[in-house]
Amino acid sequence: MNITIIGLGLIGGSMALDLRANGFAARLIGVDANPRHRQLAQDMELVDEVMELGPACRQADIVLLAVPVNAIVSLATAVLDNMGADTVAIEVGSTKAEIAQAIAGHPRRAQFVLAHPMAGTEYSGPKAAISNLFQHKAAIICDPGDSSPQAVRLAERLFKSLFMRVIYMESSAHDVHAAYVSHISHISSYVLALTVLEKEKVEANIFNMASGGFASTVRLAKSSPRMWNDIYEQNAQNILDVLDIYIEKIQEFRDLIARGEFDETYRLMESANAIGKILKAPQFNSTKV
Amino acid sequence: MNITIIGLGLIGGSMALDLRANGFAARLIGVDANPRHRQLAQDMELVDEVMELGPACRQADIVLLAVPVNAIVSLATAVLDNMGADTVAIEVGSTKAEIAQAIAGHPRRAQFVLAHPMAGTEYSGPKAAISNLFQHKAAIICDPGDSSPQAVRLAERLFKSLFMRVIYMESSAHDVHAAYVSHISHISSYVLALTVLEKEKVEANIFNMASGGFASTVRLAKSSPRMWNDIYEQNAQNILDVLDIYIEKIQEFRDLIARGEFDETYRLMESANAIGKILKAPQFNSTKV
Repeated sequence: MNITIIGLGLIGGSMALDLRANGFAARLIGVDANPRHRQLAQDMELVDEVMELGPACRQADIVLLAVPVNAIVSLATAVLDNMGADTVAIEVGSTKAEIAQAIAGHPRRAQFVLAHPMAGTEYSGPKAAISNLFQHKAAIICDPGDSSPQAVRLAERLFKSLFMRVIYMESSAHDVHAAYVSHISHISSYVLALTVLEKEKVEANIFNMASGGFASTVRLAKSSPRMWNDIYEQNAQNILDVLDIYIEKIQEFRDLIARGEFDETYRLMESANAIGKILKAPQFNSTKV
Repeated sequence: MNITIIGLGLIGGSMALDLRANGFAARLIGVDANPRHRQLAQDMELVDEVMELGPACRQADIVLLAVPVNAIVSLATAVLDNMGADTVAIEVGSTKAEIAQAIAGHPRRAQFVLAHPMAGTEYSGPKAAISNLFQHKAAIICDPGDSSPQAVRLAERLFKSLFMRVIYMESSAHDVHAAYVSHISHISSYVLALTVLEKEKVEANIFNMASGGFASTVRLAKSSPRMWNDIYEQNAQNILDVLDIYIEKIQEFRDLIARGEFDETYRLMESANAIGKILKAPQFNSTKV
């Protein structure tokens, strides 16, 4: 199968590695606006060749859109316009509603699949590409009824070839849930980093004592600002809803400490411990993020 | 060397495993207020025998105090009163100023060492004990001038036998820094868990899509409420100072998203990325927390 990957970063590059290794892709064509990333992807042999978007779409059986979500919105129509009548486009961004809207009226809408492979690391660019990033993770296919059965089946085959679990969701539900289980984690991690870095300006030694617990909560603060800005923009309302709840709860926690109401902080922490049963699910038994 | 460990949980139990394996301890005596933990520690052969605090201190060359920090404050005097004139007590709690104050006037103050091995996991109790938890991590010795040179040297030998880096700090500085690099991480993680769990009540499926990034930021929410409550109580003022900065920054981040000021969120995330250089330090090159 000829697979064109638009966006040769962490996700696109990691897909290229696995789809070549498992034989799903016979030929990999890369598209990237960044000349340095194009060169790197060729030097690393992530793809067989790089092309402009038009010819790359025309030669593809599958087009994977793995760019930041605002770029997916900008490029989706051009991809559909350029690709063949049997080609399937699959976007793998972290938001869905605006992307769905951008292609809603397109005559080739049925050839387009909205999907979110729930895998990643805090790194970006072609050099961030790693093998087996996706295995045992969830691949969410959104609004499957708006794609043709053939297109959905092809997307399923692709994700299953990466050992992913395929689940289905409405775009709007996806965006709410993603705000809770992914977007808020990144914001709390960025803010934690900012808080500690500000202190570190005057206390050069502070990190000498930082341990793995800190590293774990702050790790996502290394993530790409470009990618995350697009997500905030497209999912602003859901993210604001979650942030408001989060801020309310941390303010409550703060006030309980200030008032010395430790029976209450105990009760809250005991409730929070329930997250343990959820983290026992198989998708968390991996050191990848 | 005879080593008495008071508190047979994650830290005490993990120290028992390594100090036996590396030959530092010839005999390990356990003390724990919880009968189930006493039994478990014996069944798991973490210690050679369990005793009451008095006789356990009298027979020890080193007494390790590895209980929650309020219990360290309560027990420190009894430990000093019961132990021999050549015995050294080392407490390994996560706060320092109140513990230092509790023993300040004791005639055997010089035989007591305040220390904080910066290692742990989100688990607790004897079953949480694991080998090699401490290696390549920092062991902070506080107020070394208030302990005898012999006592400090013995504590250093013990920590170095666990392959730890020993660093020195004033108690008050320790408590400020610990609030930044450890205590705030735990609170943000507890609050993240509470936020998401509340949503999950009405959206049973939400965790189906949670990925490793979420798992990483929320992992510390599994930590022991008892242990953390004591820390909040003893380090309340420093924790409140950090929480106030954190809340101010997350509110700012929220407002920038609400106003669509994405140049500003970009700038903040780019600043936060600087945490990456810190996380490259050798103590983070471990999967343990």
